[in-house]
Amino acid sequence: MQDNTRTEIASLGEFGLIEHLTKNNDTTNAGTILSIGDDAAVIDQFGRQSVISTDLLLEGIHFDLMYTPLKHLGYKAVAVNLSDIYAMMATPTHITLALGVSNKFSVEALEEFYEGVYAACEKFNVDLIGGDTSSSKTGFVISVTAIGEVAPDKYVTRSGAKVNDLICVSGDLGGAYLGLQLLEREKRIFLENPGIQPDLENQKYLVGRILKPEPRADITEWLQEAGIMPTSMIDISDGLSSELLHICKSSDVGCILYEEKIPIHDDARKMASEFQLGAVAAALSGGEDYELLFTIKQEDYEKVACNSNISIIGYVTEKKEGCNLLTTGGNKHKLTAAGWTAV
Amino acid sequence: MQDNTRTEIASLGEFGLIEHLTKNNDTTNAGTILSIGDDAAVIDQFGRQSVISTDLLLEGIHFDLMYTPLKHLGYKAVAVNLSDIYAMMATPTHITLALGVSNKFSVEALEEFYEGVYAACEKFNVDLIGGDTSSSKTGFVISVTAIGEVAPDKYVTRSGAKVNDLICVSGDLGGAYLGLQLLEREKRIFLENPGIQPDLENQKYLVGRILKPEPRADITEWLQEAGIMPTSMIDISDGLSSELLHICKSSDVGCILYEEKIPIHDDARKMASEFQLGAVAAALSGGEDYELLFTIKQEDYEKVACNSNISIIGYVTEKKEGCNLLTTGGNKHKLTAAGWTAV
Repeated sequence: MQDNTRTEIASLGEFGLIEHLTKNNDTTNAGTILSIGDDAAVIDQFGRQSVISTDLLLEGIHFDLMYTPLKHLGYKAVAVNLSDIYAMMATPTHITLALGVSNKFSVEALEEFYEGVYAACEKFNVDLIGGDTSSSKTGFVISVTAIGEVAPDKYVTRSGAKVNDLICVSGDLGGAYLGLQLLEREKRIFLENPGIQPDLENQKYLVGRILKPEPRADITEWLQEAGIMPTSMIDISDGLSSELLHICKSSDVGCILYEEKIPIHDDARKMASEFQLGAVAAALSGGEDYELLFTIKQEDYEKVACNSNISIIGYVTEKKEGCNLLTTGGNKHKLTAAGWTAV
Repeated sequence: MQDNTRTEIASLGEFGLIEHLTKNNDTTNAGTILSIGDDAAVIDQFGRQSVISTDLLLEGIHFDLMYTPLKHLGYKAVAVNLSDIYAMMATPTHITLALGVSNKFSVEALEEFYEGVYAACEKFNVDLIGGDTSSSKTGFVISVTAIGEVAPDKYVTRSGAKVNDLICVSGDLGGAYLGLQLLEREKRIFLENPGIQPDLENQKYLVGRILKPEPRADITEWLQEAGIMPTSMIDISDGLSSELLHICKSSDVGCILYEEKIPIHDDARKMASEFQLGAVAAALSGGEDYELLFTIKQEDYEKVACNSNISIIGYVTEKKEGCNLLTTGGNKHKLTAAGWTAV
C-alpha cells in the first residue's frame, strides 16, 4: 500500500473511524429506514420492518482460546449479536454464521462450538439459516449476522432521549470485566506454574458474566408487556460511560448519572477490591456486560421502579449541562468514554 | 482444546464439514423457508420473501494485498456476495459489512477499500446499512452479508433440475483462475528481482476477471424479462465441475457436459497454453468466475439460444447415469469436484 498521506487508525478511534468512513454513505433504497450508527439497521420489507446487526469476533482480540470453552464461545457469538437486536426492542428470528477456521481445530472442536451456537438459537428461538466456512491462516474468525422483526416504527434507537427522561439499566455492571481480569490472572499463574490448576469454583458468577453473557430478552419482553416504550436504548458492550455518551450524543442531550445508583453485584465489589480496582470504574468502562441501557418518560417511573431487574441510575438534562457523574461523596465529574475526568 | 477423538477438518473437506456441523440444525421459525445448503437462505417476512447470504474473505486465503488494490478488494467483497443473491433469482437491496483491520492499515487505505464498497453498492443499487469494525492482530478480515428480495416462491434453488433440462452458463469460464496464476507469477518474479516491474497491460481481461468480478445481474434481469424461470441455479465460485455437482446432488439427477461447449475466452486459452495448463481444466476447477450456472426446461431452448451471453453446455440425465463430461475427442469422463477422472 502506497499512501502519500498516512493517518493512523488509532488517531480516530473505533467510533471515529466508522463515522469517517461512512460519512458519505448515501442510502438510496426507499426501504432503508435506519442505516449505520445504531445497534442495528432497520429496513422496510413489504410494510413491516426487519432489524439487522452484524458482529465480528476475532481470536486474540475478542477471545482467548486458552480459557474460553468453545461451547461457551459459540453461545456468546450468537448472544452478543442478539443483544443488539433486543436493544432495538425487536425480536430476533434468524442468524447467519461465517467462520474462518485454522487446521489446528479438529472437527470435534468445531462440533463443540456449534453446540453452543445451537443452544443459543434454541434458547432465543432463532434459526441458523446460512453461513460460510473458510480455512484461516490467522486464528479463529467468527462473524454473525442477526435478523429480527419489529412492528412498523416500534423500534427504539439511540436518538430519542428527551430532557427529564429517566436513565435505566438492567441487571448489574462491571462483572464481565472483573471476570476477565480474573481469567487473565489465572492464565498468567498457570503459564508460570503449569502445576497449579486455577480454582474458579467460587467465582462462577464473574466467570459466567464474561464467558456466557445472556442478552436481556426478558427485559424487552417485560417492557412490551408493561406498555413502556423506552425513548432510547442501547446495549452495553463497551461500558456504561461509553454507551451513555452514545445516547447523549445521538439524542443531543446531557445527563446526570448517580454513582450510588449504579448496580454492582457483591462478587464484583469483592473482586474489584482484590484487584485494587474501583468497582464503579469497572462498571463505567469495563464493558461486555450486555445489559440494556435505556431512557423512559417520567410517567413510566412507577412501573419501572417496581421491577427489581431494572435500576434507575440518573436522568437526562439539556445538552449544555454536559454529561456528568455525581459521586457518592457529592462531587461532580465529567463522564468520558474511558470512565470520567474531574471537572 | 482437549479432544479424546480427533478428526482432521481436511478429512471432511469444506462442504462435508458444513454438512456435518449443520446436519442437526432444526429450524423452528415458521418464517424459515430455505435454510443452509444453497447460495442463500430464504425467509418469509410478512408475506413476501427475503434472501440472505454471508461470505467471509480472509487475507492470505482469499486475497493477497501485494497485488490486490484495496478499491478492487472492496468492490469484490460486495460483488461476490451479491452474486449469491442473483443466483437465487432475487434482487439484492442491502448489505452489512464487518471488518477486522490491523494497525498497518492507514485511514487512507481503508478509505480506498470503502470507495470500492460504495462503487459496488451504487452500481447494483444496494445500501450499506450496518457493520462492525474491529482491530485485528491477524490480517485483514472482511465479512459481508447481503439481503435481497424476491416475489413469493419465485426464488430458484439448486435442487429443481429435472431430467432433460438444458444446462446453461453465462459469460466465459477459467479466466479468473488464469488471471490469478498470472498475478502469482508476476509476484514471484518481482520478489526475486524487485527491479522488474510487472507488465500486465496486455492482460487486462484476465487480471480484471480475478480482481474485479462482476455479478451477473444482467442475466437474472434478462431471464425475468424473457419470462424464463430456471429450474435450478448456482453461481460459480468454486469451478464449473464443483457447482454442477452441487446442482446434480441437490436435484438428485445426473448430467452430460460437452467439453466443446464450455465457453472460454481467447485470452484464457492463450494464457492456459503459456502456463501449459488445459483451458478446460481451468474452467472446470479454477473457480472465482462468478458466472451463473443454471438449468432450463427444453421449451425455453430457443429463447436462450439467441442470447450470446449464455451458452448451453449440456443436459440433465437420470441420476443413475452419473455426472459425465463428453470430451471433444468423444470420450466420456466422470466429473469430480476437482475436474474429472477417467471412467
